[in-house]
Amino acid sequence: MDLRPIGVFDSGLGGLTGVKALLELLPGEDIVYFGDTGRVPYGGRSRQTIVRYARQAVSLLLRHDVKAILVACGTVSTNALEDIKGDYPIPITGVVEAAAAAAAKATKNGRIGLIGTKATVRSSAFEQRIRAELPGAQVFKNACPLFVPLVEEGRTDPSDKVLQLVVEDYLAPIKAAGVDTLILGCTHYPLIFDAIARSMGPGVTLINTAEAAAADMAELLKNAGLLSGGGSGSLRCFVSDSTEGFAQSAAAFLGRDVGDTAQQISVDEL
Amino acid sequence: MDLRPIGVFDSGLGGLTGVKALLELLPGEDIVYFGDTGRVPYGGRSRQTIVRYARQAVSLLLRHDVKAILVACGTVSTNALEDIKGDYPIPITGVVEAAAAAAAKATKNGRIGLIGTKATVRSSAFEQRIRAELPGAQVFKNACPLFVPLVEEGRTDPSDKVLQLVVEDYLAPIKAAGVDTLILGCTHYPLIFDAIARSMGPGVTLINTAEAAAADMAELLKNAGLLSGGGSGSLRCFVSDSTEGFAQSAAAFLGRDVGDTAQQISVDEL
Repeated sequence: MDLRPIGVFDSGLGGLTGVKALLELLPGEDIVYFGDTGRVPYGGRSRQTIVRYARQAVSLLLRHDVKAILVACGTVSTNALEDIKGDYPIPITGVVEAAAAAAAKATKNGRIGLIGTKATVRSSAFEQRIRAELPGAQVFKNACPLFVPLVEEGRTDPSDKVLQLVVEDYLAPIKAAGVDTLILGCTHYPLIFDAIARSMGPGVTLINTAEAAAADMAELLKNAGLLSGGGSGSLRCFVSDSTEGFAQSAAAFLGRDVGDTAQQISVDEL
Repeated sequence: MDLRPIGVFDSGLGGLTGVKALLELLPGEDIVYFGDTGRVPYGGRSRQTIVRYARQAVSLLLRHDVKAILVACGTVSTNALEDIKGDYPIPITGVVEAAAAAAAKATKNGRIGLIGTKATVRSSAFEQRIRAELPGAQVFKNACPLFVPLVEEGRTDPSDKVLQLVVEDYLAPIKAAGVDTLILGCTHYPLIFDAIARSMGPGVTLINTAEAAAADMAELLKNAGLLSGGGSGSLRCFVSDSTEGFAQSAAAFLGRDVGDTAQQISVDEL
């Protein structure tokens, strides 16, 4: 039994989709969240910069005595996690392993699609894990750099014409490849799940990386005897830009109101 | 006569449209440019964060002994310039005054449109300057948060369907207001000048803020006796993320090849 909180971080607020999944699986756990809203998005940045920002986020969460960290960010999970996870005294997991395993299990034709940020698609982290699970699997990937700005603008309604056009544009090569499974490799994408599902059609299984990663973290804590054994399930949020507008944005990602509970914090000197 | 370089900065590489205009007006001046590519874009951030980042950029340029600074960024010019410019021993100018003066001169019906980032539109800097120049002018503004991501994705061709749809979506209320002049309040927008011009139609004058601001800076240096009196016109560029891909992106904004001349620099501890 371990009463310390679970740490979760993301470049911005997309990682709250991972918090949402964690809270559903482990309602008694306390969670400390950090969203680097002063520097979001990470998806177009270099690997070295993503690694530097990830180390700062981990340092911040360690100050809050977290027992484990979930990297609820596809860009950091694919570009920085392998570099940094061995350097800290607590378990740090990301979205790659769980989503790769879920995709390998779901596919029938061995053709798996992957969509994410430029940095996620530039990395080969997902393919490596998918092939470790299912040798011979073929992975078809495409970067979708406008999805994060669209989600952040709140353009998530499947009837939004701009969203529809961008979704069709990015998914066309994935559909043409005949995939039967598609990994949503960014924690912002669950907010446009409906638009993506409508475009892909009913024969394609969509893998929500945030949900898969939360289930993975729950399993890890259980197996390691690190669950809190019940509690209030508090959520503390820190962001690196102003907290103005946080409540509204957070509600969209969490699916429930958490009020103006965020605190602004400086992270770049950590 | 002053042989020191002119400093120019922006959240990213959009400010190079200002450098392009400066180099045309003052081919003998040396220029030091800083693009905060590790934290771009600024347009959705809070005023306090924009002020902090702007001070760091000014500190960096002062280390390179610049004689004046052009803030080639609509977001910083509208949200931070008035706060910071009095705190430094050299002239610091932005894009607001020159563009407001140009718009006030160009309009015949007193109806002026303004497009920019969320932060630029949230500020009232442009309206205040326009009304100082032309009392009674009416300003109609709209934030265009997807324009910067589109430009950064290289989707600048006026025949790009996504760009066309987004342009129509953002400009519809501006067109409905019957403006005869439109300020492009962000230094990224000259790259989609053609798409904007086609949408607005031939009766509307577009004000390129980067060009207006460069002309303003040239005038200031001339009047203050700070021109170099001829020289090589060198350009040194610094960025806060990796320099990979810089040459290609810079060429798009500058309209000419400058090669791999950028250096990466850490700015967040300044």
